[in-house]
Amino acid sequence: MGFILPQYVEPDFGETPLRDSPVVTFAEVGQAGVAPVNYHSTTIFPEYFQVQPREWVLLKESRMDAVVVLEPDGSLSAREFRHLRVGDQVACGRGEHGEEGIYVHTEAFGAAPRAGEKFVFRTRITRETAFSIDYDELYQLLEYERTEGFILWVLGPAAVFDHDSRQALVEIVTGGYAHALLAGNALATHDLEGALFGTALGQELYSKRPVPLGHYRHMDTINQIRAVGGIEPAIAAGLIRDGVMHALVQNRIPFVLAGSIRDDGPLPEVIVDMERAQDAMRAHARRATTVIALATQLHSIATGNMLPSYQVMANGSVRPVFFYIVDMTEFAVDKLANRGSLSAHSILTNVQDFLVTLERGLRRRCH
Amino acid sequence: MGFILPQYVEPDFGETPLRDSPVVTFAEVGQAGVAPVNYHSTTIFPEYFQVQPREWVLLKESRMDAVVVLEPDGSLSAREFRHLRVGDQVACGRGEHGEEGIYVHTEAFGAAPRAGEKFVFRTRITRETAFSIDYDELYQLLEYERTEGFILWVLGPAAVFDHDSRQALVEIVTGGYAHALLAGNALATHDLEGALFGTALGQELYSKRPVPLGHYRHMDTINQIRAVGGIEPAIAAGLIRDGVMHALVQNRIPFVLAGSIRDDGPLPEVIVDMERAQDAMRAHARRATTVIALATQLHSIATGNMLPSYQVMANGSVRPVFFYIVDMTEFAVDKLANRGSLSAHSILTNVQDFLVTLERGLRRRCH
Amino acid sequence: MGFILPQYVEPDFGETPLRDSPVVTFAEVGQAGVAPVNYHSTTIFPEYFQVQPREWVLLKESRMDAVVVLEPDGSLSAREFRHLRVGDQVACGRGEHGEEGIYVHTEAFGAAPRAGEKFVFRTRITRETAFSIDYDELYQLLEYERTEGFILWVLGPAAVFDHDSRQALVEIVTGGYAHALLAGNALATHDLEGALFGTALGQELYSKRPVPLGHYRHMDTINQIRAVGGIEPAIAAGLIRDGVMHALVQNRIPFVLAGSIRDDGPLPEVIVDMERAQDAMRAHARRATTVIALATQLHSIATGNMLPSYQVMANGSVRPVFFYIVDMTEFAVDKLANRGSLSAHSILTNVQDFLVTLERGLRRRCH
Amino acid sequence: MGFILPQYVEPDFGETPLRDSPVVTFAEVGQAGVAPVNYHSTTIFPEYFQVQPREWVLLKESRMDAVVVLEPDGSLSAREFRHLRVGDQVACGRGEHGEEGIYVHTEAFGAAPRAGEKFVFRTRITRETAFSIDYDELYQLLEYERTEGFILWVLGPAAVFDHDSRQALVEIVTGGYAHALLAGNALATHDLEGALFGTALGQELYSKRPVPLGHYRHMDTINQIRAVGGIEPAIAAGLIRDGVMHALVQNRIPFVLAGSIRDDGPLPEVIVDMERAQDAMRAHARRATTVIALATQLHSIATGNMLPSYQVMANGSVRPVFFYIVDMTEFAVDKLANRGSLSAHSILTNVQDFLVTLERGLRRRCH
Repeated sequence: MGFILPQYVEPDFGETPLRDSPVVTFAEVGQAGVAPVNYHSTTIFPEYFQVQPREWVLLKESRMDAVVVLEPDGSLSAREFRHLRVGDQVACGRGEHGEEGIYVHTEAFGAAPRAGEKFVFRTRITRETAFSIDYDELYQLLEYERTEGFILWVLGPAAVFDHDSRQALVEIVTGGYAHALLAGNALATHDLEGALFGTALGQELYSKRPVPLGHYRHMDTINQIRAVGGIEPAIAAGLIRDGVMHALVQNRIPFVLAGSIRDDGPLPEVIVDMERAQDAMRAHARRATTVIALATQLHSIATGNMLPSYQVMANGSVRPVFFYIVDMTEFAVDKLANRGSLSAHSILTNVQDFLVTLERGLRRRCH
Repeated sequence: MGFILPQYVEPDFGETPLRDSPVVTFAEVGQAGVAPVNYHSTTIFPEYFQVQPREWVLLKESRMDAVVVLEPDGSLSAREFRHLRVGDQVACGRGEHGEEGIYVHTEAFGAAPRAGEKFVFRTRITRETAFSIDYDELYQLLEYERTEGFILWVLGPAAVFDHDSRQALVEIVTGGYAHALLAGNALATHDLEGALFGTALGQELYSKRPVPLGHYRHMDTINQIRAVGGIEPAIAAGLIRDGVMHALVQNRIPFVLAGSIRDDGPLPEVIVDMERAQDAMRAHARRATTVIALATQLHSIATGNMLPSYQVMANGSVRPVFFYIVDMTEFAVDKLANRGSLSAHSILTNVQDFLVTLERGLRRRCH
Repeated sequence: MGFILPQYVEPDFGETPLRDSPVVTFAEVGQAGVAPVNYHSTTIFPEYFQVQPREWVLLKESRMDAVVVLEPDGSLSAREFRHLRVGDQVACGRGEHGEEGIYVHTEAFGAAPRAGEKFVFRTRITRETAFSIDYDELYQLLEYERTEGFILWVLGPAAVFDHDSRQALVEIVTGGYAHALLAGNALATHDLEGALFGTALGQELYSKRPVPLGHYRHMDTINQIRAVGGIEPAIAAGLIRDGVMHALVQNRIPFVLAGSIRDDGPLPEVIVDMERAQDAMRAHARRATTVIALATQLHSIATGNMLPSYQVMANGSVRPVFFYIVDMTEFAVDKLANRGSLSAHSILTNVQDFLVTLERGLRRRCH
Repeated sequence: MGFILPQYVEPDFGETPLRDSPVVTFAEVGQAGVAPVNYHSTTIFPEYFQVQPREWVLLKESRMDAVVVLEPDGSLSAREFRHLRVGDQVACGRGEHGEEGIYVHTEAFGAAPRAGEKFVFRTRITRETAFSIDYDELYQLLEYERTEGFILWVLGPAAVFDHDSRQALVEIVTGGYAHALLAGNALATHDLEGALFGTALGQELYSKRPVPLGHYRHMDTINQIRAVGGIEPAIAAGLIRDGVMHALVQNRIPFVLAGSIRDDGPLPEVIVDMERAQDAMRAHARRATTVIALATQLHSIATGNMLPSYQVMANGSVRPVFFYIVDMTEFAVDKLANRGSLSAHSILTNVQDFLVTLERGLRRRCH
């Protein structure tokens, strides 16, 4: 049985109280990068703005904690503060039920089911939660998204520390299950160290034997890639012949390597300006229909911040965005929930096992 | 400002649907230790049983996952399966809203407040939750309970691994803030090793220097205590002159040391039969009004299983039981929640710091 | 390539200082369950005792923190304190290098390799360690042990909460890769709840949907099994038709269910006396050549306490014991190391994924 | 008793093999930002370079994973790859024992003591380690460093989520125990939200009550600070009257707010270019004699990367750098160790309790 997209439930603007809502007001930006008093701030949910009487416009390519700008062409866009320009028209009002012309639609894909009983076990997701069904659903989802959606991977470096999981990732990329990848300098560096030297941070990838002068390996990797001008030139020159970065470049899958203060080097492709990095990441988040975030709090939360719970497709239909977070700790999951990203699916496990299992499951379904 | 006990809200048995409830039925136990079909199983909440028309009896000294036995004197008791005797009358029915004469009263101390907004941050308790108010409330609570309630401590061995926290525990016991203690062989052994040798598992308590042949210390401790016949004889003989066990015995505070398969020795006071150990623990849980469980999943969950969320006091009034769990991981807290112990207050921190901070806070308030 | 057993390196008793060692002394037990002063306490390593000049006897079926008793037949046995009887002859001396006739042989299977460099990365095992080779080695090891050794499983309840991992465990048992199992009441209860109702703690095993009155399911399970007298009768009666306990009984694999204060019920097979439970566990630990401990601190540490790092085989040869611990946290691993069980191999992951991956790996190798 | 600085042990260059070492060779940088083949990469340890026969020069203001540049004035500096300019002279050679004129001095402050015994408990630092002595040593150390050293704080946002710990931090800053602070946008934003609204991420700081429209608070904070041009202007304008940022500015303690892809806003002071941020951080790391890193993996590892284990003081003496990391998980500590930062002291606890306890301990000593 294949994957079936949940149905979007349109709000009923003909009913009270929405029927009686005023038109939303806009205020002008007076100082670049600063929102006017009483600006409306976005959530992860679909939001509608009554721009003219009886005309409710759904915000596209949304994200949380943005302000809503009325563009010259009449469309609305979710804009970060830093992108506000003097004269921009910003939606105002903080009521979420239409009282100021703004409606935040939290039950767009049906309300969460509620147990009617008073005493229920196992309400929290922990390492002891059963995940068999989540894997099976994910196989189906990725098969669907492979052609119909946009699968965005968000990776911490642990994904390529292991021989089998690195290879599984390569297969996933090659198999068409990745449309873009967000990561940092470390993921790429460790992967390239594997390609150049067969090691990760100085340990042989498979055997884990520390090699002589192993702590030089990642610096040598960075130095060599810098010398040839970047990852793509290194692949073109035949320096890099395997691994995740190689698979991405060979399959023309775009990637964003966002810098951080933890970086050595960094590699030439790493975007060291955080505002530019966020813009580059959001360019993919705008299109993402499924996100899989593995073993990275930094990148997971960053992506979660810029990810809506829905996308408006080319044909105008509205569909949910699936956000999977795979991590070892309940804390990582709870932290995301505390940021308001309530819609994430969590799988608590080691990402290496996750990747190996996922790749096998996808392969099995194909044959 | 002192502590104020939350008000108990009596159910309204004169209103529908409870007004129209039938009388509860009882079935007879036919096989010792086995409940009759359709037995009612208890929760942590106050539960009422309509034993005669218009006569609803509140279950006292309850616990979860027990069956309710109608005693010869007409009272009700929450009994574990293993304590069922042939001929016992067991309450039947699984409806919780009176439909079978049983009412589970989940909002006895007011309903949990709900945020009306759609988008709220920080709904989960994590290590990043602020705990200042919890400490302050706990100081007030313990001051109240010191004379008006029954404070039950549940301790993992980490509580006495540290010089300052072991000392803080002694002060807490001496100060009257403990009415009983539940722990295992390790807590007592490490504490006694401290008294005998100034070490814990072979490390000097304060300096943490490993001592020569340190791994003998805990076996020597157990051996010496076994030789004199137990902890109390060892204290009487002047062998043990400080520490938590010493403070308990000197202040006549009862303790239960429950055995486990992990135990060395064990010490003579350790109860090696789990059913007897559970009975001994529950004897205190029946009276507990505040429980503080530190750094032990095993004993915390065991105690949580046998702890109601309320107690009926001697004067017939009903009050809540406060259950604090202090642990380092969200998992420990979530696991307890998944067992149905929803009413626990969680503080995520190291128990050593918790104890030192708590003791200081209590002392400061006294002066 | 198959598994090759590491070579045992015999100590050289003809060389100084062992050549000049005295004969070990024994002291008589004067009080049951209490060791004489200066008793020798065992470690996890092979230990030799010079019982007669030039006659060094290797302790068989050892464990840590035991005392060594000279049996009437001249053999030595590692005995827990509680099993000491008046008149027993106990080996004395705490020197480990032969100075009192006792030699603790820590490098029996070759010394751990040491990096000669001053600056090495990745010396600690964490969730970011690569585990591909550990899986492959484990496949080979289990294939060898299936016929040549004794594989002991130690399981926490999370192993059967999940549909796929529960099924994988059944396949592992059926395939001959388990010679005994140690667990607690919860593992068996959740597994049997799965067989009876298709749920675990009230959630459907695969779909995770909470079922109506789900919190009754595990109590109903316990009650039904108690009613028929135990797990084996329940299987004989056709009540239980699948799952791990079913597979064990069908394949005549022995199991020990050790009680704890956390238990509901418990099931009739659960051993509620901790000393009897430890004896029952050790009966298997005495024979174990590979132990796989999953997601249970309590049972892992208990087993680690009674497990030597070597076994003397029927033909007199000495081989290592392999101890794998699979858990989600570095803490569980560190805690075991802090108890002296230095020889454990750790894999940090979710046990569900571990079991599914392991079973697949074993199956693939067979075909 | 006060703090006593450990003695630096000079290497003996008159002894073999160092007596026979060659002079170190330097190679010229041919491409900006790229090191020549066989470049030497630094560690956290003191490193000596024999620049002329019998003239060994100690590298000052070192850091790990840097290259060593011979400056025109004859001094040596530890330079990141990205700061290499064409023509720079870079030290070459990877031998660490003088064989290429480079000596890495790992036992500068005495070798780590080793237990002579074969079987030792508690070798790993976990949440169950005793920390009383660490606190006491830290009080003494900070008192010394307050006037003699340079105390660098590295903070995650959890430090200001709590009323008492935020206040403790203010006292620590005011008391002179902080010479610089490294943090991110979130720490400053939450602290300023506390000053402006008395909340943190929409919860009242002390009571934790969620306030209406609470999720606007941090965006409103950022927006208001952006409107006035930054934190310092906001303080000058009287907008911000309490908290950590206020204390820093009032006491003229420098701070670096390094950007990340997770940032909202960000605040005007946040450095969004990672290379500039690293340079700003290292300006303080160069001078740091004690670093205290709380609850932030990102900033802790970043700082650890740029921190040597020693400093050369103005008078030419060499002293150790103390690096404390306070976190909830063994993983955070292990991860740092796996990066080569072996010299860190770890305290596993909640940073809130840590700060409150630390501040009390410092205060008590003063009076």
